[in-house]
Amino acid sequence: MPPPIEDPWPAVCLVRPQMGENIGAVARVLLNFGLVSLRLVAPRDAWPNPKAEVVAVGADRVLKGAKVEWRLEDALGDATLVIAATARPRDLEKPVWGPRQAAQIIRAAIAQGERPVVMFGPEAAGMETDEIARADAIVTLPVNPGFASLNLAQSVAVFAFAIAEARQSGDAPAWFKHENPAAAQADLESFFSHLENELERGRFFHPEDKAPLMKRNLRALFLRARLSEQEVRTLRGVIKALTIGRGGRKKDDT
Amino acid sequence: MPPPIEDPWPAVCLVRPQMGENIGAVARVLLNFGLVSLRLVAPRDAWPNPKAEVVAVGADRVLKGAKVEWRLEDALGDATLVIAATARPRDLEKPVWGPRQAAQIIRAAIAQGERPVVMFGPEAAGMETDEIARADAIVTLPVNPGFASLNLAQSVAVFAFAIAEARQSGDAPAWFKHENPAAAQADLESFFSHLENELERGRFFHPEDKAPLMKRNLRALFLRARLSEQEVRTLRGVIKALTIGRGGRKKDDT
Repeated sequence: MPPPIEDPWPAVCLVRPQMGENIGAVARVLLNFGLVSLRLVAPRDAWPNPKAEVVAVGADRVLKGAKVEWRLEDALGDATLVIAATARPRDLEKPVWGPRQAAQIIRAAIAQGERPVVMFGPEAAGMETDEIARADAIVTLPVNPGFASLNLAQSVAVFAFAIAEARQSGDAPAWFKHENPAAAQADLESFFSHLENELERGRFFHPEDKAPLMKRNLRALFLRARLSEQEVRTLRGVIKALTIGRGGRKKDDT
Repeated sequence: MPPPIEDPWPAVCLVRPQMGENIGAVARVLLNFGLVSLRLVAPRDAWPNPKAEVVAVGADRVLKGAKVEWRLEDALGDATLVIAATARPRDLEKPVWGPRQAAQIIRAAIAQGERPVVMFGPEAAGMETDEIARADAIVTLPVNPGFASLNLAQSVAVFAFAIAEARQSGDAPAWFKHENPAAAQADLESFFSHLENELERGRFFHPEDKAPLMKRNLRALFLRARLSEQEVRTLRGVIKALTIGRGGRKKDDT
Protein backbone atom coordinates (compact mmCIF):
# COMPACT_ATOMS: atom_id res chain seq x y z
CA MET A 1 0.00 0.00 0.00
CA PRO A 2 1.38 3.45 -0.86
CA PRO A 3 2.11 5.83 2.03
CA PRO A 4 -0.61 8.16 3.35
CA ILE A 5 -0.85 11.59 1.72
CA GLU A 6 -0.85 14.67 3.94
CA ASP A 7 -0.26 17.83 1.94
CA PRO A 8 -0.15 21.04 4.01
CA TRP A 9 -1.05 23.14 0.95
CA PRO A 10 -3.47 24.24 -0.29
CA ALA A 11 -5.26 25.19 2.91
CA VAL A 12 -9.04 25.29 2.86
CA CYS A 13 -10.70 28.21 4.62
CA LEU A 14 -14.38 28.06 5.59
CA VAL A 15 -15.77 31.56 5.91
CA ARG A 16 -18.46 31.89 8.62
CA PRO A 17 -19.51 28.21 8.45
CA GLN A 18 -22.79 27.43 10.16
CA MET A 19 -23.39 23.73 10.77
CA GLY A 20 -20.89 21.66 12.73
CA GLU A 21 -21.89 18.63 10.67
CA ASN A 22 -20.68 20.37 7.54
CA ILE A 23 -17.37 21.35 9.14
CA GLY A 24 -16.85 17.72 10.15
CA ALA A 25 -17.75 16.47 6.67
CA VAL A 26 -15.27 18.93 5.19
CA ALA A 27 -12.49 17.68 7.49
CA ARG A 28 -13.23 14.10 6.49
CA VAL A 29 -13.26 14.66 2.76
CA LEU A 30 -10.12 16.80 2.90
CA LEU A 31 -8.22 13.95 4.52
CA ASN A 32 -9.83 11.51 2.04
CA PHE A 33 -8.07 13.41 -0.69
CA GLY A 34 -4.83 14.02 1.21
CA LEU A 35 -5.38 17.60 2.41
CA VAL A 36 -4.92 18.46 6.08
CA SER A 37 -4.97 22.26 6.53
CA LEU A 38 -8.31 23.68 7.59
CA ARG A 39 -9.04 27.27 8.59
CA LEU A 40 -12.29 28.57 10.01
CA VAL A 41 -13.35 32.19 10.08
CA ALA A 42 -15.97 33.09 12.68
CA PRO A 43 -17.83 29.76 12.85
CA ARG A 44 -21.43 30.34 13.95
CA ASP A 45 -21.37 27.85 16.83
CA ALA A 46 -18.95 27.38 19.71
CA TRP A 47 -15.62 25.80 18.84
CA PRO A 48 -14.59 22.98 19.32
CA ASN A 49 -17.92 21.66 18.05
CA PRO A 50 -18.97 18.12 19.08
CA LYS A 51 -21.22 17.77 16.01
CA ALA A 52 -18.24 18.36 13.77
CA GLU A 53 -16.26 15.69 15.62
CA VAL A 54 -18.99 13.06 15.16
CA VAL A 55 -19.11 13.57 11.40
CA ALA A 56 -15.35 13.86 10.87
CA VAL A 57 -15.03 10.17 11.87
CA GLY A 58 -11.30 9.39 11.52
CA ALA A 59 -10.30 12.91 10.51
CA ASP A 60 -10.40 14.35 14.03
CA ARG A 61 -6.88 15.64 13.80
CA VAL A 62 -7.75 17.79 10.77
CA LEU A 63 -10.41 19.38 12.99
CA LYS A 64 -8.07 19.66 15.97
CA GLY A 65 -5.42 21.26 13.80
CA ALA A 66 -7.89 23.77 12.35
CA LYS A 67 -6.85 27.41 12.72
CA VAL A 68 -9.78 29.48 13.94
CA GLU A 69 -9.85 33.23 13.39
CA TRP A 70 -12.46 35.90 13.81
CA ARG A 71 -11.40 38.00 10.86
CA LEU A 72 -10.91 36.78 7.30
CA GLU A 73 -7.76 38.87 6.88
CA ASP A 74 -6.14 37.00 9.77
CA ALA A 75 -7.00 33.63 8.24
CA LEU A 76 -5.49 34.72 4.92
CA GLY A 77 -2.50 36.61 6.31
CA ASP A 78 0.17 34.15 5.17
CA ALA A 79 -1.51 33.23 1.87
CA THR A 80 0.25 34.17 -1.35
CA LEU A 81 -2.56 32.95 -3.60
CA VAL A 82 -6.20 33.20 -2.56
CA ILE A 83 -8.99 31.51 -4.49
CA ALA A 84 -12.68 31.99 -3.75
CA ALA A 85 -15.02 29.10 -4.48
CA THR A 86 -18.29 30.66 -5.48
CA ALA A 87 -21.04 29.93 -7.94
CA ARG A 88 -21.74 33.60 -8.39
CA PRO A 89 -18.81 35.63 -9.64
CA ARG A 90 -19.87 39.24 -9.04
CA ASP A 91 -18.76 42.17 -11.08
CA LEU A 92 -15.15 41.67 -10.14
CA GLU A 93 -12.41 41.60 -12.71
CA LYS A 94 -10.82 38.34 -11.66
CA PRO A 95 -9.83 35.15 -13.45
CA VAL A 96 -12.54 32.47 -13.24
CA TRP A 97 -11.39 28.85 -13.26
CA GLY A 98 -12.99 25.42 -13.23
CA PRO A 99 -11.90 23.00 -10.49
CA ARG A 100 -9.42 21.17 -12.66
CA GLN A 101 -7.76 24.34 -13.93
CA ALA A 102 -7.66 25.74 -10.40
CA ALA A 103 -6.13 22.50 -9.12
CA GLN A 104 -3.37 22.55 -11.72
CA ILE A 105 -2.55 26.18 -11.05
CA ILE A 106 -2.52 25.55 -7.30
CA ARG A 107 -0.19 22.56 -7.65
CA ALA A 108 2.15 24.58 -9.86
CA ALA A 109 2.11 27.47 -7.39
CA ILE A 110 2.94 25.13 -4.48
CA ALA A 111 5.86 23.72 -6.46
CA GLN A 112 7.18 27.29 -6.57
CA GLY A 113 6.90 27.77 -2.84
CA GLU A 114 3.59 29.63 -2.78
CA ARG A 115 1.01 29.21 -0.03
CA PRO A 116 -2.45 28.93 -1.64
CA VAL A 117 -5.66 29.13 0.35
CA VAL A 118 -9.07 28.29 -1.10
CA MET A 119 -12.03 29.84 0.66
CA PHE A 120 -15.63 28.60 0.75
CA GLY A 121 -18.58 30.71 1.92
CA PRO A 122 -21.26 29.97 4.51
CA GLU A 123 -24.05 27.49 3.77
CA ALA A 124 -26.98 29.75 3.11
CA ALA A 125 -25.84 33.03 1.63
CA GLY A 126 -22.35 32.43 0.31
CA MET A 127 -19.52 34.92 0.68
CA GLU A 128 -19.98 38.66 0.60
CA THR A 129 -18.54 40.69 -2.21
CA ASP A 130 -15.89 42.21 0.06
CA GLU A 131 -14.76 38.72 1.02
CA ILE A 132 -14.55 37.54 -2.56
CA ALA A 133 -12.71 40.76 -3.43
CA ARG A 134 -9.71 39.46 -1.44
CA ALA A 135 -9.22 36.58 -3.86
CA ASP A 136 -6.78 36.44 -6.74
CA ALA A 137 -9.16 34.22 -8.66
CA ILE A 138 -12.51 32.49 -8.52
CA VAL A 139 -13.25 28.80 -8.88
CA THR A 140 -16.74 27.76 -10.01
CA LEU A 141 -18.36 24.36 -10.41
CA PRO A 142 -20.19 23.26 -13.58
CA VAL A 143 -23.57 23.12 -11.81
CA ASN A 144 -27.09 22.73 -13.09
CA PRO A 145 -28.45 26.26 -13.63
CA GLY A 146 -31.81 24.90 -12.48
CA PHE A 147 -30.48 23.76 -9.07
CA ALA A 148 -27.14 25.34 -8.38
CA SER A 149 -26.92 25.43 -4.60
CA LEU A 150 -24.41 22.81 -3.49
CA ASN A 151 -23.98 21.56 0.04
CA LEU A 152 -20.80 23.06 1.53
CA ALA A 153 -19.03 19.74 2.06
CA GLN A 154 -19.96 18.61 -1.46
CA SER A 155 -18.29 21.67 -2.95
CA VAL A 156 -15.17 21.01 -0.92
CA ALA A 157 -15.30 17.34 -1.99
CA VAL A 158 -15.23 18.26 -5.65
CA PHE A 159 -12.39 20.70 -5.13
CA ALA A 160 -10.36 18.25 -3.02
CA PHE A 161 -10.89 15.55 -5.64
CA ALA A 162 -9.60 17.89 -8.34
CA ILE A 163 -6.47 18.51 -6.25
CA ALA A 164 -5.95 14.76 -5.81
CA GLU A 165 -6.38 14.23 -9.52
CA ALA A 166 -3.87 16.98 -10.34
CA ARG A 167 -1.46 15.36 -7.86
CA GLN A 168 -1.58 12.21 -9.97
CA SER A 169 -1.22 13.91 -13.31
CA GLY A 170 2.11 15.53 -12.46
CA ASP A 171 3.26 19.11 -12.57
CA ALA A 172 1.32 21.58 -14.67
CA PRO A 173 2.76 24.73 -16.19
CA ALA A 174 2.81 27.62 -13.76
CA TRP A 175 0.10 30.21 -14.03
CA PHE A 176 2.61 32.90 -13.26
CA LYS A 177 6.27 32.54 -12.33
CA HIS A 178 7.73 34.91 -9.80
CA GLU A 179 11.44 35.58 -9.75
CA ASN A 180 10.97 36.79 -6.17
CA PRO A 181 8.77 35.45 -3.38
CA ALA A 182 5.10 36.25 -3.89
CA ALA A 183 3.55 38.77 -1.54
CA ALA A 184 1.39 37.36 1.23
CA GLN A 185 -2.08 38.74 1.86
CA ALA A 186 -0.87 40.47 5.04
CA ASP A 187 1.66 42.49 3.00
CA LEU A 188 -0.98 43.35 0.43
CA GLU A 189 -3.40 44.29 3.18
CA SER A 190 -1.00 46.86 4.70
CA PHE A 191 -0.26 48.18 1.25
CA PHE A 192 -3.96 48.60 0.48
CA SER A 193 -4.59 50.29 3.84
CA HIS A 194 -1.70 52.60 3.25
CA LEU A 195 -2.90 53.46 -0.25
CA GLU A 196 -6.53 53.88 0.79
CA ASN A 197 -5.60 56.14 3.71
CA GLU A 198 -3.56 58.36 1.51
CA LEU A 199 -6.27 58.43 -1.14
CA GLU A 200 -8.82 59.41 1.50
CA ARG A 201 -6.58 62.26 2.55
CA GLY A 202 -6.60 63.33 -1.09
CA ARG A 203 -10.42 63.03 -1.25
CA PHE A 204 -10.09 60.45 -4.02
CA PHE A 205 -13.14 58.41 -3.00
CA HIS A 206 -15.88 60.59 -4.28
CA PRO A 207 -18.87 60.34 -4.16
CA GLU A 208 -18.66 58.65 -0.78
CA ASP A 209 -21.20 55.90 -1.51
CA LYS A 210 -19.03 54.70 -4.37
CA ALA A 211 -16.01 54.34 -2.07
CA PRO A 212 -16.42 50.57 -1.39
CA LEU A 213 -16.68 49.82 -5.10
CA MET A 214 -13.74 52.06 -5.95
CA LYS A 215 -11.65 50.31 -3.29
CA ARG A 216 -12.60 46.87 -4.58
CA ASN A 217 -11.69 47.82 -8.13
CA LEU A 218 -8.31 49.17 -7.00
CA ARG A 219 -7.64 45.99 -5.05
CA ALA A 220 -8.69 43.84 -7.98
CA LEU A 221 -6.27 45.66 -10.24
CA PHE A 222 -3.31 45.14 -7.91
CA LEU A 223 -4.31 41.54 -7.10
CA ARG A 224 -4.28 40.69 -10.78
CA ALA A 225 -0.68 41.91 -10.94
CA ARG A 226 0.34 39.02 -8.60
CA LEU A 227 2.81 41.27 -6.79
CA SER A 228 5.99 39.97 -5.22
CA GLU A 229 7.05 40.98 -1.69
CA GLN A 230 9.65 43.26 -3.25
CA GLU A 231 7.11 44.91 -5.52
CA VAL A 232 4.83 45.64 -2.58
CA ARG A 233 7.75 47.33 -0.82
CA THR A 234 8.43 49.29 -3.99
CA LEU A 235 4.82 50.43 -4.24
CA ARG A 236 4.79 51.54 -0.62
CA GLY A 237 7.87 53.58 -1.43
CA VAL A 238 6.01 55.04 -4.38
CA ILE A 239 3.13 56.14 -2.17
CA LYS A 240 5.50 57.67 0.36
CA ALA A 241 7.34 59.51 -2.41
CA LEU A 242 4.08 60.80 -3.86
CA THR A 243 2.69 61.99 -0.56
CA ILE A 244 5.81 63.42 1.07
CA GLY A 245 5.61 67.04 1.95
CA ARG A 246 1.91 67.05 1.13
CA GLY A 247 1.38 69.79 3.67
CA GLY A 248 -1.73 70.84 5.51
CA ARG A 249 -3.73 67.64 6.05
CA LYS A 250 -2.47 65.04 8.48
CA LYS A 251 -3.61 61.46 8.70
CA ASP A 252 -5.59 62.04 11.91
CA ASP A 253 -7.70 64.85 10.57
CA THR A 254 -9.64 62.65 8.10
CA MET B 1 -29.52 32.06 -17.48
CA PRO B 2 -29.07 28.78 -19.38
CA PRO B 3 -31.89 26.22 -19.10
CA PRO B 4 -31.90 23.64 -16.28
CA ILE B 5 -30.12 20.36 -17.02
CA GLU B 6 -31.98 17.10 -16.43
CA ASP B 7 -30.20 14.16 -18.01
CA PRO B 8 -31.93 10.80 -17.57
CA TRP B 9 -28.66 8.93 -18.13
CA PRO B 10 -26.49 7.80 -16.49
CA ALA B 11 -28.67 6.48 -13.67
CA VAL B 12 -27.12 6.16 -10.24
CA CYS B 13 -27.93 3.01 -8.27
CA LEU B 14 -27.38 2.88 -4.51
CA VAL B 15 -26.91 -0.72 -3.43
CA ARG B 16 -28.31 -1.42 0.08
CA PRO B 17 -27.95 2.18 1.29
CA GLN B 18 -28.27 2.63 5.04
CA MET B 19 -28.80 6.24 6.15
CA GLY B 20 -31.71 8.26 4.80
CA GLU B 21 -29.59 11.41 5.16
CA ASN B 22 -27.11 10.00 2.68
CA ILE B 23 -29.82 9.09 0.19
CA GLY B 24 -31.16 12.63 0.44
CA ALA B 25 -27.69 14.13 0.00
CA VAL B 26 -27.17 11.93 -3.08
CA ALA B 27 -30.46 13.14 -4.61
CA ARG B 28 -29.45 16.74 -4.01
CA VAL B 29 -25.98 16.50 -5.48
CA LEU B 30 -27.24 14.54 -8.49
CA LEU B 31 -29.62 17.34 -9.36
CA ASN B 32 -26.85 19.89 -8.64
CA PHE B 33 -24.93 18.34 -11.51
CA GLY B 34 -27.93 17.75 -13.77
CA LEU B 35 -28.61 14.05 -13.11
CA VAL B 36 -32.10 12.91 -12.16
CA SER B 37 -32.28 9.10 -12.27
CA LEU B 38 -31.84 7.41 -8.92
CA ARG B 39 -32.28 3.70 -8.19
CA LEU B 40 -32.23 2.11 -4.76
CA VAL B 41 -31.66 -1.56 -4.08
CA ALA B 42 -32.96 -2.83 -0.73
CA PRO B 43 -32.58 0.37 1.34
CA ARG B 44 -32.10 -0.51 5.02
CA ASP B 45 -34.91 1.74 6.31
CA ALA B 46 -38.54 2.10 5.24
CA TRP B 47 -39.15 3.92 1.99
CA PRO B 48 -40.17 6.74 1.47
CA ASN B 49 -37.76 7.98 4.15
CA PRO B 50 -38.49 11.36 5.81
CA LYS B 51 -34.80 11.84 6.71
CA ALA B 52 -33.90 11.61 3.05
CA GLU B 53 -36.52 14.22 2.20
CA VAL B 54 -35.17 16.71 4.74
CA VAL B 55 -31.64 16.53 3.34
CA ALA B 56 -32.65 16.49 -0.33
CA VAL B 57 -33.89 20.09 0.07
CA GLY B 58 -35.07 21.11 -3.40
CA ALA B 59 -34.36 17.75 -5.03
CA ASP B 60 -37.45 16.00 -3.68
CA ARG B 61 -38.57 14.97 -7.11
CA VAL B 62 -35.34 13.04 -7.68
CA LEU B 63 -36.23 11.11 -4.51
CA LYS B 64 -39.87 10.71 -5.52
CA GLY B 65 -38.82 9.44 -8.94
CA ALA B 66 -36.38 6.92 -7.45
CA LYS B 67 -36.92 3.36 -8.58
CA VAL B 68 -36.77 1.01 -5.60
CA GLU B 69 -36.01 -2.67 -6.08
CA TRP B 70 -35.22 -5.52 -3.75
CA ARG B 71 -32.80 -7.29 -6.06
CA LEU B 72 -29.81 -5.73 -7.79
CA GLU B 73 -30.55 -7.61 -11.01
CA ASP B 74 -33.94 -5.90 -11.22
CA ALA B 75 -32.39 -2.47 -10.74
CA LEU B 76 -29.88 -3.18 -13.52
CA GLY B 77 -32.22 -5.00 -15.88
CA ASP B 78 -32.37 -2.31 -18.57
CA ALA B 79 -28.73 -1.21 -18.23
CA THR B 80 -26.42 -1.79 -21.18
CA LEU B 81 -23.31 -0.53 -19.37
CA VAL B 82 -22.82 -1.07 -15.65
CA ILE B 83 -20.05 0.62 -13.69
CA ALA B 84 -19.25 -0.15 -10.06
CA ALA B 85 -17.82 2.67 -7.95
CA THR B 86 -15.53 1.01 -5.47
CA ALA B 87 -12.24 1.84 -3.82
CA ARG B 88 -11.33 -1.80 -3.66
CA PRO B 89 -11.16 -3.53 -7.02
CA ARG B 90 -11.13 -7.22 -6.17
CA ASP B 91 -9.54 -9.94 -8.21
CA LEU B 92 -11.87 -9.36 -11.11
CA GLU B 93 -10.61 -8.93 -14.63
CA LYS B 94 -12.37 -5.68 -15.38
CA PRO B 95 -11.31 -2.30 -16.71
CA VAL B 96 -10.58 0.20 -13.91
CA TRP B 97 -11.22 3.87 -14.67
CA GLY B 98 -10.82 7.19 -12.89
CA PRO B 99 -13.89 9.42 -12.63
CA ARG B 100 -12.99 11.58 -15.59
CA GLN B 101 -12.30 8.63 -17.85
CA ALA B 102 -15.50 6.94 -16.70
CA ALA B 103 -17.46 10.13 -17.34
CA GLN B 104 -16.15 10.47 -20.88
CA ILE B 105 -16.89 6.84 -21.67
CA ILE B 106 -20.37 7.14 -20.20
CA ARG B 107 -21.13 10.28 -22.21
CA ALA B 108 -19.93 8.59 -25.39
CA ALA B 109 -22.02 5.51 -24.63
CA ILE B 110 -25.14 7.63 -24.06
CA ALA B 111 -24.55 9.37 -27.39
CA GLN B 112 -24.77 5.91 -28.96
CA GLY B 113 -28.06 5.11 -27.27
CA GLU B 114 -26.69 3.05 -24.39
CA ARG B 115 -28.22 3.07 -20.92
CA PRO B 116 -25.40 3.31 -18.36
CA VAL B 117 -25.94 2.75 -14.65
CA VAL B 118 -23.32 3.52 -12.02
CA MET B 119 -23.66 1.65 -8.75
CA PHE B 120 -22.41 2.67 -5.30
CA GLY B 121 -22.20 0.31 -2.33
CA PRO B 122 -23.55 0.69 1.20
CA GLU B 123 -21.89 3.06 3.68
CA ALA B 124 -20.00 0.70 5.91
CA ALA B 125 -18.93 -2.38 4.03
CA GLY B 126 -19.12 -1.47 0.34
CA MET B 127 -20.44 -3.83 -2.31
CA GLU B 128 -19.99 -7.55 -2.23
CA THR B 129 -17.86 -9.26 -4.84
CA ASP B 130 -20.90 -10.80 -6.51
CA GLU B 131 -22.43 -7.36 -6.86
CA ILE B 132 -19.28 -5.87 -8.35
CA ALA B 133 -19.05 -8.88 -10.66
CA ARG B 134 -22.12 -7.59 -12.52
CA ALA B 135 -20.26 -4.50 -13.67
CA ASP B 136 -18.59 -3.97 -17.02
CA ALA B 137 -16.00 -1.75 -15.39
CA ILE B 138 -14.93 -0.22 -12.10
CA VAL B 139 -14.50 3.44 -11.26
CA THR B 140 -12.16 4.37 -8.42
CA LEU B 141 -11.32 7.70 -6.80
CA PRO B 142 -7.76 8.95 -6.25
CA VAL B 143 -8.04 8.76 -2.48
CA ASN B 144 -5.50 9.06 0.29
CA PRO B 145 -4.29 5.50 1.03
CA GLY B 146 -4.09 6.58 4.68
CA PHE B 147 -7.79 7.51 4.88
CA ALA B 148 -9.64 6.03 1.95
CA SER B 149 -13.21 5.66 3.21
CA LEU B 150 -15.37 8.31 1.58
CA ASN B 151 -18.84 9.27 2.68
CA LEU B 152 -21.39 7.84 0.20
CA ALA B 153 -22.77 11.20 -0.92
CA GLN B 154 -19.24 12.57 -1.35
CA SER B 155 -18.36 9.73 -3.71
CA VAL B 156 -21.49 10.40 -5.73
CA ALA B 157 -20.67 14.14 -5.71
CA VAL B 158 -17.28 13.53 -7.28
CA PHE B 159 -18.75 11.22 -9.89
CA ALA B 160 -21.62 13.60 -10.73
CA PHE B 161 -19.16 16.48 -11.01
CA ALA B 162 -17.07 14.45 -13.46
CA ILE B 163 -20.17 13.84 -15.57
CA ALA B 164 -21.01 17.56 -15.56
CA GLU B 165 -17.45 18.38 -16.55
CA ALA B 166 -17.55 15.86 -19.40
CA ARG B 167 -20.86 17.38 -20.53
CA GLN B 168 -19.07 20.70 -20.97
CA SER B 169 -16.06 19.32 -22.76
CA GLY B 170 -18.07 17.81 -25.60
CA ASP B 171 -18.20 14.34 -26.99
CA ALA B 172 -15.38 11.97 -26.22
CA PRO B 173 -14.32 9.07 -28.40
CA ALA B 174 -16.42 6.01 -27.78
CA TRP B 175 -14.97 3.28 -25.62
CA PHE B 176 -16.50 0.70 -27.87
CA LYS B 177 -18.77 1.20 -30.83
CA HIS B 178 -21.54 -1.30 -31.41
CA GLU B 179 -22.98 -1.75 -34.84
CA ASN B 180 -26.03 -3.26 -33.14
CA PRO B 181 -27.82 -2.29 -29.92
CA ALA B 182 -25.88 -3.26 -26.79
CA ALA B 183 -27.27 -6.08 -24.70
CA ALA B 184 -29.06 -5.05 -21.51
CA GLN B 185 -28.18 -6.67 -18.21
CA ALA B 186 -31.47 -8.58 -18.22
CA ASP B 187 -30.48 -10.27 -21.52
CA LEU B 188 -27.04 -11.05 -20.18
CA GLU B 189 -28.56 -12.36 -16.97
CA SER B 190 -30.75 -14.89 -18.78
CA PHE B 191 -27.82 -15.89 -20.92
CA PHE B 192 -25.62 -16.45 -17.85
CA SER B 193 -28.35 -18.45 -16.11
CA HIS B 194 -28.83 -20.56 -19.20
CA LEU B 195 -25.08 -21.15 -19.53
CA GLU B 196 -24.58 -21.87 -15.83
CA ASN B 197 -27.50 -24.30 -15.73
CA GLU B 198 -26.14 -26.22 -18.66
CA LEU B 199 -22.65 -26.22 -17.20
CA GLU B 200 -24.01 -27.54 -13.91
CA ARG B 201 -25.68 -30.35 -15.78
CA GLY B 202 -22.28 -31.12 -17.28
CA ARG B 203 -20.62 -31.02 -13.82
CA PHE B 204 -18.38 -28.20 -14.99
CA PHE B 205 -18.24 -26.42 -11.63
CA HIS B 206 -15.84 -28.63 -9.80
CA PRO B 207 -14.81 -28.55 -6.97
CA GLU B 208 -18.10 -27.18 -5.70
CA ASP B 209 -16.58 -24.51 -3.43
CA LYS B 210 -14.88 -22.97 -6.43
CA ALA B 211 -18.20 -22.64 -8.29
CA PRO B 212 -18.89 -18.97 -7.32
CA LEU B 213 -15.41 -17.92 -8.45
CA MET B 214 -15.67 -19.91 -11.68
CA LYS B 215 -19.03 -18.28 -12.41
CA ARG B 216 -17.67 -14.81 -11.73
CA ASN B 217 -14.73 -15.38 -14.03
CA LEU B 218 -17.00 -16.62 -16.79
CA ARG B 219 -19.24 -13.60 -16.38
CA ALA B 220 -16.26 -11.26 -16.39
CA LEU B 221 -15.05 -12.75 -19.64
CA PHE B 222 -18.38 -12.25 -21.41
CA LEU B 223 -18.92 -8.79 -19.88
CA ARG B 224 -15.60 -7.62 -21.26
CA ALA B 225 -16.81 -8.61 -24.72
CA ARG B 226 -19.52 -5.87 -24.50
CA LEU B 227 -22.01 -8.13 -26.25
CA SER B 228 -24.77 -6.80 -28.45
CA GLU B 229 -28.35 -8.03 -28.16
CA GLN B 230 -27.82 -10.01 -31.33
CA GLU B 231 -24.65 -11.63 -30.02
CA VAL B 232 -26.42 -12.72 -26.85
CA ARG B 233 -29.09 -14.40 -28.98
CA THR B 234 -26.35 -16.04 -31.02
CA LEU B 235 -24.63 -17.35 -27.90
CA ARG B 236 -27.87 -18.76 -26.56
CA GLY B 237 -28.23 -20.56 -29.87
CA VAL B 238 -24.70 -21.86 -29.43
CA ILE B 239 -25.54 -23.30 -26.01
CA LYS B 240 -28.69 -24.91 -27.36
CA ALA B 241 -26.77 -26.39 -30.26
CA LEU B 242 -24.09 -27.73 -27.95
CA THR B 243 -26.53 -29.28 -25.50
CA ILE B 244 -29.14 -30.65 -27.85
CA GLY B 245 -29.66 -34.35 -27.61
CA ARG B 246 -27.43 -34.49 -24.53
CA GLY B 247 -29.32 -37.48 -23.31
CA GLY B 248 -29.77 -38.89 -19.83
CA ARG B 249 -29.74 -35.93 -17.45
CA LYS B 250 -32.61 -33.47 -17.44
CA LYS B 251 -32.62 -29.97 -16.02
CA ASP B 252 -34.80 -30.87 -13.06
CA ASP B 253 -32.57 -33.61 -11.77
CA THR B 254 -29.70 -31.31 -10.80
